[in-house]
Amino acid sequence: MRILTFLSDFGAGSPYPAAMKAAAAAICDAVMVDISHDLPPQAIRGGAYLLWSVAPVFPSGSVHCAVIDPGVGTARAALAVVSGSQVFVGPDNGLLLPAAHRLGTPAVYRLTNPAYWRSPVSATFHGRDVFAPAAAHIIAGASLERMGERAETYVDLTFPAGGREGNGLRGEVLWIDRFGNLITTIPGPLLGTLPAGSAVTVETGAARVHARVAHTFADAAQGEAVVLVGSDDMIEVAVTGGSAAARTGGVAGSVVRIRPA
Amino acid sequence: MRILTFLSDFGAGSPYPAAMKAAAAAICDAVMVDISHDLPPQAIRGGAYLLWSVAPVFPSGSVHCAVIDPGVGTARAALAVVSGSQVFVGPDNGLLLPAAHRLGTPAVYRLTNPAYWRSPVSATFHGRDVFAPAAAHIIAGASLERMGERAETYVDLTFPAGGREGNGLRGEVLWIDRFGNLITTIPGPLLGTLPAGSAVTVETGAARVHARVAHTFADAAQGEAVVLVGSDDMIEVAVTGGSAAARTGGVAGSVVRIRPA
Amino acid sequence: MRILTFLSDFGAGSPYPAAMKAAAAAICDAVMVDISHDLPPQAIRGGAYLLWSVAPVFPSGSVHCAVIDPGVGTARAALAVVSGSQVFVGPDNGLLLPAAHRLGTPAVYRLTNPAYWRSPVSATFHGRDVFAPAAAHIIAGASLERMGERAETYVDLTFPAGGREGNGLRGEVLWIDRFGNLITTIPGPLLGTLPAGSAVTVETGAARVHARVAHTFADAAQGEAVVLVGSDDMIEVAVTGGSAAARTGGVAGSVVRIRPA
Repeated sequence: MRILTFLSDFGAGSPYPAAMKAAAAAICDAVMVDISHDLPPQAIRGGAYLLWSVAPVFPSGSVHCAVIDPGVGTARAALAVVSGSQVFVGPDNGLLLPAAHRLGTPAVYRLTNPAYWRSPVSATFHGRDVFAPAAAHIIAGASLERMGERAETYVDLTFPAGGREGNGLRGEVLWIDRFGNLITTIPGPLLGTLPAGSAVTVETGAARVHARVAHTFADAAQGEAVVLVGSDDMIEVAVTGGSAAARTGGVAGSVVRIRPA
Repeated sequence: MRILTFLSDFGAGSPYPAAMKAAAAAICDAVMVDISHDLPPQAIRGGAYLLWSVAPVFPSGSVHCAVIDPGVGTARAALAVVSGSQVFVGPDNGLLLPAAHRLGTPAVYRLTNPAYWRSPVSATFHGRDVFAPAAAHIIAGASLERMGERAETYVDLTFPAGGREGNGLRGEVLWIDRFGNLITTIPGPLLGTLPAGSAVTVETGAARVHARVAHTFADAAQGEAVVLVGSDDMIEVAVTGGSAAARTGGVAGSVVRIRPA
Repeated sequence: MRILTFLSDFGAGSPYPAAMKAAAAAICDAVMVDISHDLPPQAIRGGAYLLWSVAPVFPSGSVHCAVIDPGVGTARAALAVVSGSQVFVGPDNGLLLPAAHRLGTPAVYRLTNPAYWRSPVSATFHGRDVFAPAAAHIIAGASLERMGERAETYVDLTFPAGGREGNGLRGEVLWIDRFGNLITTIPGPLLGTLPAGSAVTVETGAARVHARVAHTFADAAQGEAVVLVGSDDMIEVAVTGGSAAARTGGVAGSVVRIRPA
C-alpha cells in the first residue's frame, strides 16, 4: 500500500483532517499518516519546514497533501509538485517547495481539472474538496497531465542558508521543537569548524548564552546549553533537560550567531 | 478496506483511543481514522456536531465508533444507528443522531448481545469493551439483528435550526473552530437574503460587531469581520487573520443575530 | 495486517512521529496506531504506564515502538522485548518492561546489528533511525537472533504494588488522566475490602477528601468524589463531573491512602 500523508494548520482537535481522509478514502486505498495538524494558523513557513524535515524518510511513491491555505477560495492555484518519486499536493503559496527541492528537481503541475475534485467545491475548504481528492487520485494512478498542466511560474520558497561569519557561524531559527530545541538553518557539517567540546556563545535576539559543542543531548550536564548536529543534519541549540527557546528567547525567524567563547 | 472512525473526549494524549483501536484490530481489518479525541469532557453536543460535519464525506460502508459517555456503567443502552449506508456506534445519549439524521432515516438498534463485546466488560470503559468491538464486528460482517434488537425509543438530538428574523437572520453558535470561526445553525443559502459585500452587524451575547458579507476568508482585509458560507454549508462568522470568537465573545450555544447595518 | 504502534514524548504537533512511521513504512506493511506522543518530555515512567495499560488489548503479533529516550546517542542499548506474542522495541531505560511483565515472562534482546537500521544513524533521533526500522523489520519477519543477541542484564522497571495498610489501603498515583482521575497502584479486587457505598477518606499529600465507594462514575452526584475500580483493574479516585487531581492535589507518584471514614 502506498503512503498518503496529511499536514495542515486545522488543529488536532478539529474534524477537518478527518474530512480530508474521508474524501481520500472514497477514492483510493492508502496508508494514511499525519505529519502534523498543529501548525500555528497560516504558518506556511513552519509547515514547509515540517514537510522538508520528513519527506526524505518516506518511501518512493508517497503522496503528501499539505494544506496551509490562507488564500483558500481566491484565484491562487492548486499544485501537484513531483520530485524524487514523491508527490506534494497543496496550495500555490510556497508550502510544498522546500521539501520538493530537497528531494530533487521539482516538476510543478497546476491542478485545473475539476473532474478530480469533489463537487461542489466549497469556497472555504479546498483541503477536503480539491487537495485530498487530487492526492487520492494520484495514489489511484491518475495522470497529472489529465489532472492539470505543467506550471512554469509558481510561488517558490527556500530557507535562507546559514553559514560562516568571521570565526563563527550565523543562521536563523527554522523551527522550535517541543523540547525547546532551536533548529537552525546552519548546515551540520559546519559544526566541524568549531572544536568538539569547545566553549561557544550563542546569540539570538537580545540574549547571549554560554554553550558547549556536543555530540548528543546527553553529553551535557542537566541545564547545560549545547550546540550539536540534529536529526535534520542542521545545527541545533539545546539545553539538556531544559528549553533552549526559554533560555535564549529565540523564536522562529530569529538570527542566531554561534562564536568561539 | 472499509473505514472505521473513532471520536471521543478521552484526550489526544490519553491511551484510551489506542485501546479502542487495539480492541477493534483484534476483530477486523479496517482503515482506522480519528475524527477527534479532543472534545471537552462530556461534550455530547460538540461531538454530535463533529460527527454531523464529517459523516457526509465518508464512503458507504464506513462505521463510526463515537464515545462521549458520562453515563458509562449505568443502564443507558449501547446503540448502533444505520443511516445512508453508514453505521454509528455509541452510547444512547443523542451523540449519534444528528449525523444519522443528516444522512437519511435512521434505523436504531440496541446492542444487547455480549457475544460481540470484550469479556469481562469494565464498568468504566465501554469504548474499549463494548463500542469498539461492536463496531469492528459490524465491519467484519456481523448482523445487527444478532448483535441486538431494533429500538423504537432512544435519546434523540437535533440542532436548533436558525432562520430569518425580521430583515435579518438568527441562530446559535454550533461550534468554534481553532481559527476562532463561529459556525452557526443558520443554513448557508439564507446568506443570499443579505446583499453580497453589504455591511451587517453581528450580535452575539453582549457584543455587536461590524462585518461584511463575503465569499471567502481572503475577501476581507486583515482584521476585518466577515459573514460567509462555510464548508458545512452553514453561515460562519470569521475575522480574517484573527478570531471571531475573541472579537465577539461568542461561545458554543450563544445566540447569533446578523442584521443589515 | 499486523499492528505497529508508536509511543513517544515528541509532541503531537511535531513531525517526529511521522518520521518514525515513514521509516517503518519503507520496510513493512502494517496498521500503524499511535498510543500517545504527548507524554511530558522524558517521562519514562508515564510512558511505561501507558504501554502497560494498552498492551493487553492488542492482538498477538503486535509490535510496539516506544521512544522516550533521554539517553539517545549515548551507549545505552536498544532493546526488543518479547512477551505474550507481542514485541516491544525501544531504549534500555525501563520503558518497555512493565508492559512486558504484564503479558508474561520477557525475553530481552539487545539490538546490535546495524543492517536493520537506517544509515547513517543520527546522534539524536534513534526513533527514526534505529527503533522504527527495527520494529518494522520484526513485522516483516526478521529474526531477533540476527538483529541482535539475548541480554541478561537490562534496566528493569516495575510499578510499586499498592495494598492493605491497617483497615485501609495504600498505594501511589500511577497516572492522572485528562478527566483528572487518579489511577493508583492499588489492585481493583482490594476495593472489596471496603463496603460498597461506604464513606471513605482519601488522603494524598496534604489533602484529605471525603469519598464514597462506587461502581461507576455515574453512581455519584455531580461534584462527589468516588473510589472505584477503573478500566485497568486498578483502584481510581474520581470526582463526578470534576477533577480528582484538582480536588486532592495528587500528582503522579503521590502516596494515596484510602480509609473507612
